Amino acid sequence: MQIEPIRNGSVTAPRGFLAGAVCAGMYAGGPKAGALDLALLVSERECTTAGVFTTNLVKGAPVLVSQQRLGGGRMRAVVANSGNSNSLNGPGGYRDATEMTELAAAHLGLDPQAVAVSSTGVTGVAMPMEKIRAAIPRISVDRDGGSDFARAIMTTDTLPKECAFSVRDDVYHIAGCAKGSGMIHPNLATMLAYVTTDAAVERGLLQRLTSEVADETLNMLSIDGDTSCSDTLLVFANGAAGPPIEAGSPRADAFRDALHAVCLQLTRMLARDGEGARRLIEVEVRGAVSLADARLIARTITTSPLVKTAVAGADPNWGRILVAAGRAGAPLEESRTSMRLQGELLLDHGAAQPFDEETLHRKLDVDEVRIQLDLDLGDASARAWGCDLTADYVHVNADYRT
Amino acid sequence: MQIEPIRNGSVTAPRGFLAGAVCAGMYAGGPKAGALDLALLVSERECTTAGVFTTNLVKGAPVLVSQQRLGGGRMRAVVANSGNSNSLNGPGGYRDATEMTELAAAHLGLDPQAVAVSSTGVTGVAMPMEKIRAAIPRISVDRDGGSDFARAIMTTDTLPKECAFSVRDDVYHIAGCAKGSGMIHPNLATMLAYVTTDAAVERGLLQRLTSEVADETLNMLSIDGDTSCSDTLLVFANGAAGPPIEAGSPRADAFRDALHAVCLQLTRMLARDGEGARRLIEVEVRGAVSLADARLIARTITTSPLVKTAVAGADPNWGRILVAAGRAGAPLEESRTSMRLQGELLLDHGAAQPFDEETLHRKLDVDEVRIQLDLDLGDASARAWGCDLTADYVHVNADYRT
Repeated sequence: MQIEPIRNGSVTAPRGFLAGAVCAGMYAGGPKAGALDLALLVSERECTTAGVFTTNLVKGAPVLVSQQRLGGGRMRAVVANSGNSNSLNGPGGYRDATEMTELAAAHLGLDPQAVAVSSTGVTGVAMPMEKIRAAIPRISVDRDGGSDFARAIMTTDTLPKECAFSVRDDVYHIAGCAKGSGMIHPNLATMLAYVTTDAAVERGLLQRLTSEVADETLNMLSIDGDTSCSDTLLVFANGAAGPPIEAGSPRADAFRDALHAVCLQLTRMLARDGEGARRLIEVEVRGAVSLADARLIARTITTSPLVKTAVAGADPNWGRILVAAGRAGAPLEESRTSMRLQGELLLDHGAAQPFDEETLHRKLDVDEVRIQLDLDLGDASARAWGCDLTADYVHVNADYRT
Repeated sequence: MQIEPIRNGSVTAPRGFLAGAVCAGMYAGGPKAGALDLALLVSERECTTAGVFTTNLVKGAPVLVSQQRLGGGRMRAVVANSGNSNSLNGPGGYRDATEMTELAAAHLGLDPQAVAVSSTGVTGVAMPMEKIRAAIPRISVDRDGGSDFARAIMTTDTLPKECAFSVRDDVYHIAGCAKGSGMIHPNLATMLAYVTTDAAVERGLLQRLTSEVADETLNMLSIDGDTSCSDTLLVFANGAAGPPIEAGSPRADAFRDALHAVCLQLTRMLARDGEGARRLIEVEVRGAVSLADARLIARTITTSPLVKTAVAGADPNWGRILVAAGRAGAPLEESRTSMRLQGELLLDHGAAQPFDEETLHRKLDVDEVRIQLDLDLGDASARAWGCDLTADYVHVNADYRT
């Protein structure tokens, strides 16, 4: 089965999904004043849904409400806002998140149990519910609203992140959008991602594939190592393009590939738009004893400040990469380890290889840097994504909030 | 027993320790050309010794040689250089590190097995042994050489780190020096620390106390989360001020306190001089279920880029602290957690407390920031130290090496 990108596709590319957004005035002033900041995504049909949420023990109220709604198994819409994360707000925050789903449900003619909620922005500040109450009824949803939805959830993102694919020979579609670039001034990193598909996928299968694919893609992304209390991935499958996909069938494998394609593309878009980032970093670890080891080493490299600053400087400083791997907590033997940077072999079973520093510097001074490590200890492999650490990251996050 | 600081004291403050340093020319040019870069520290008497080394699986040759010498139990000197870490150099690096101990032993009239070696600086570049061979015989050691030793091991450090104490009513002395400020351009963070004492401490007791105290002090320090392949702490006890300190005695407790005082002061000096740092961060976690949990949460907060950038901006952004704690991997309940920032209560059992933002901003705009977290779950507590993350850190580490 072929998976083909849909040009300018959004989360409303799959059949039966509608979306829309308005400016609720969440940003009183500043560069985002007047921006879209409140959005709805809804399926015209019943959906199966799956989700993955932050593992942080401190969870925002919208995550708690959405987790409960997901458990109910009848979800088909999400209301999302930027400008305020409604987290660290105690019981009042939970009430506000619940009311947001009730307002959206009333506007869309749904049961509140069918509506998830996501919020991203400042923490510890009460949600301005009067603005939300006034704005939700103004949102009109339609087949062209997917890109507005993707824009409305942006915070410090410089670009919306969305993609869509059609699965040939099977005639269904799958699409996604996401936001997140490390944090929102002046608060926490939050990754929000939504996937829509008109395939018909049984709920248990959808949750299993979602968890597996998230572990391979979005969970292998790090902008700065800090997780948010609001991180959310929701997948809606409305079956408008049935017949049902059965677990264990070739069609299930193809659907997994399609879901992986969406999540991988969103992951790469998020990494590339990391706060202050100039370069995407992709780390591939092969030859690990276990998958957990491969992931641990790959993630440790993408989160190392010394590796991230070296990449910012286009510095072929392979020693930093090896030593970051050495502290990951997974087996590694220096004398068995090989490393490539931008495809160039720098370390061959522990032996440093000669290279032209100026040439490699130029090869690193590009948008995407690829690090490959072969541990020569086993058969497991993993990939992780991150971005370089620049002075702009510090400026975005250190400037005193006003 | 009283522990009193010795003004301007160095590692040669305890009786029977000599030190000295020269410029071996390790820095061909740049701001460090002509600086002291090769040093010796030696005890006139036999010593008991203890050590703690990097846990990184990638270890520099000097660490491997020093670990082996420490195991022999007869060590009484260390030769140390900056400008080249002699790590990632394969078997040739091991030969060079061994030769450095042989050259120092010949110069000092000792068995090479009595000499440890430490190197800090660029990685993956062969040690310029012709410079070492020419310079070691030029080092004259004396009672006043401690501060020269502390200077010779500096890399990107802006200040030498040394301190000394006398233990009253017992008449012995203990002193230490250290280097490290995140990394050395263009390579890895390395922490080197040496403690000398004229107390007489049996080897097993000395190693146990050294490991315990290191876990409470130097191991709770993070500049940037990256460990080096060369991190080393060595403790030399030459017994010039006997009688022997017995395990389990009040004198052993007092010696532990004195060792803790030295290591704590060095830890704070290292944190304060972190690369690009303007502020020391001290995090205290109380009420944890276990010591491991308390340490994990304290360390996670000190390594969080979002916390570190908030501190750089003197931003009272307590949400970032709570959410960093929430991802540490240790139990935490938002509704039981309290937090103080610069002594001001911001969170009381999960309830945010009102505060004047401008006032707290001014209280944070100082050299030292104190974060206190009470989990209200148990009796364990821990402290950790770090520094803020500024754009200068990125500049130090991202500029392309030339």
